[in-house]
Amino acid sequence: MATANRQILLNELPKGKLTPEHFRLSQGSVPAAKDGEVLLKVRYVSLDAANRAWMQGRTYRAALEPGQVMAGGAIAEVVESKSSGLKTGDLVFADTGWQEYAAVSAKGLQPLPKLEPITHLLSVFGVAGLTAYFGLLNVGKPKAGETVVVSAAAGSVGSIVGQIAKIKECRVVGIAGGKDKCDRLVKELGFDAAVDYKAGPLFPGLKAAAPKGIDVYFDNVGGEILESCISLMNMHGRISCCGAVSMYDGNAPVTGPRNVPGLLVTKRLTMQGFIVMDYAKENDKALSDLQSWVKSGKLKVYEDILTGIESLPQALVGLLAGDNVGKRMVKVS
Amino acid sequence: MATANRQILLNELPKGKLTPEHFRLSQGSVPAAKDGEVLLKVRYVSLDAANRAWMQGRTYRAALEPGQVMAGGAIAEVVESKSSGLKTGDLVFADTGWQEYAAVSAKGLQPLPKLEPITHLLSVFGVAGLTAYFGLLNVGKPKAGETVVVSAAAGSVGSIVGQIAKIKECRVVGIAGGKDKCDRLVKELGFDAAVDYKAGPLFPGLKAAAPKGIDVYFDNVGGEILESCISLMNMHGRISCCGAVSMYDGNAPVTGPRNVPGLLVTKRLTMQGFIVMDYAKENDKALSDLQSWVKSGKLKVYEDILTGIESLPQALVGLLAGDNVGKRMVKVS
Repeated sequence: MATANRQILLNELPKGKLTPEHFRLSQGSVPAAKDGEVLLKVRYVSLDAANRAWMQGRTYRAALEPGQVMAGGAIAEVVESKSSGLKTGDLVFADTGWQEYAAVSAKGLQPLPKLEPITHLLSVFGVAGLTAYFGLLNVGKPKAGETVVVSAAAGSVGSIVGQIAKIKECRVVGIAGGKDKCDRLVKELGFDAAVDYKAGPLFPGLKAAAPKGIDVYFDNVGGEILESCISLMNMHGRISCCGAVSMYDGNAPVTGPRNVPGLLVTKRLTMQGFIVMDYAKENDKALSDLQSWVKSGKLKVYEDILTGIESLPQALVGLLAGDNVGKRMVKVS
Repeated sequence: MATANRQILLNELPKGKLTPEHFRLSQGSVPAAKDGEVLLKVRYVSLDAANRAWMQGRTYRAALEPGQVMAGGAIAEVVESKSSGLKTGDLVFADTGWQEYAAVSAKGLQPLPKLEPITHLLSVFGVAGLTAYFGLLNVGKPKAGETVVVSAAAGSVGSIVGQIAKIKECRVVGIAGGKDKCDRLVKELGFDAAVDYKAGPLFPGLKAAAPKGIDVYFDNVGGEILESCISLMNMHGRISCCGAVSMYDGNAPVTGPRNVPGLLVTKRLTMQGFIVMDYAKENDKALSDLQSWVKSGKLKVYEDILTGIESLPQALVGLLAGDNVGKRMVKVS
């Protein structure tokens, strides 16, 4: 049994852009599980834009503090259980933080289904897949024939949103950074069009790609891209607000979309924020759909897997810069 | 029978703030009604912030053009009918424009109910009352005990929104400009609190007036007031976007609310734009409720009536500056 527990600490809160120097590698000891807890061995840590948002202040969780083990969700294996609900060998998804071992309350943890590859438990059958599913179908409510636009379209959530929208017979336009990503969205994932926001002003390209306007916009980024999409929305369009990655990294004052609320009124638009837990009651149905789509080949899964706990800081910094295609995670053990 | 038809023309489109000099008084002739049309004598012209928005470009109607009779809705009396659906003496609400007589298609026009004072057909039983009713109840969906905040609270729509929210047993906070308006909201209309946005920074006063946070915000103004309200919204709060009067008068670049979409996600808020026609199917129910509330004294009606067609330009300029309390209109005949 290991006694050392390597950890990545949040060294200081970033004032501007996040860099690997905001973290440090440290060595703690393997904690003991108390009654009602389980000792977890971390397998794959999930990298998410939300990790950065947590550094800006209170969100749906308390703000992070310098010196703490960096927070983050992971697929982890139970190596010792002091809870009747879990046994050694079970896999769980838990907020372990960036470390090799964590003792956490078993409350709210459930054994994950046995499936291979287990990385799918972090991507398409995890928070990313469920976020895409609920945010598109429950919030965006696309109808066949409508135009759906998704930003961060080559990311973990966006790549699934676009494919589900195709399954629902919509015209699908992805917004992504770089020609390579855009090509893959169209050629590999079946998007009808993709617009490279790094190649020049977004609006003309987006307008050409969505000639009938936008009925559903799945927003992962906020900022200027949101503003452009609002301008192209059709009457009674829906905007599913999943995140605002453009606003997370740095704390310069940002301007909100200048057409809010003006065009919301004129076009009777609905903008709705959500997080995946809001729809937890419907997880079974969603997972059943996602599994059948993956099995039939209708839904392709992009994963971007790095290795080694020490690669976590750069993995997050790179995620915020859009280096990844699909769900980024780090294999810790 | 009159032959002269005094008209207010839109002389030029405003580049910045609207002034009476953007209009000119002109004299045309009384038009003849063609088949399917009615000749209307204008009684009371409705003044609305939307009049100004129409000058900025296409909204839910085509943009206004210099030289045309200024557009606007009015209560008008049928003086000649070439339509089987309407007869001489009927009152209708029609887009007559700012003039003494207009010949308009009878299509879509319906005789208004006979009631006194007929000005109520423009205020509480007209677009203002229905806008307040649907925007609050169908879009904001307040529950008893929740906190409802409304901006432009002493205006035609806001004053009704706040009273309906009280009828629905909510805590009601109005935002208005000036101590006199705020006092009247609390003392005369029964609002629980009113915050004077001209008296200093809005946020602290609003926070004190809504100590449990905001569940429903009825937004008539956009801009910084919207931004402050978003910051105080409770989880799963609803923002009913009725208009953005702060953005209509002038065309300086404005910033959107900087917490959009960030706080929409964190707090799972819904922002929804609407216009009153969206709920026309439910007009009968709404009017029945509004009439019973007025009759029982639960709903007080503020009207602000000016006289003479030549007072229309200043009436609109003053409305945009917040001079009015309640529904502003001009008696033309």
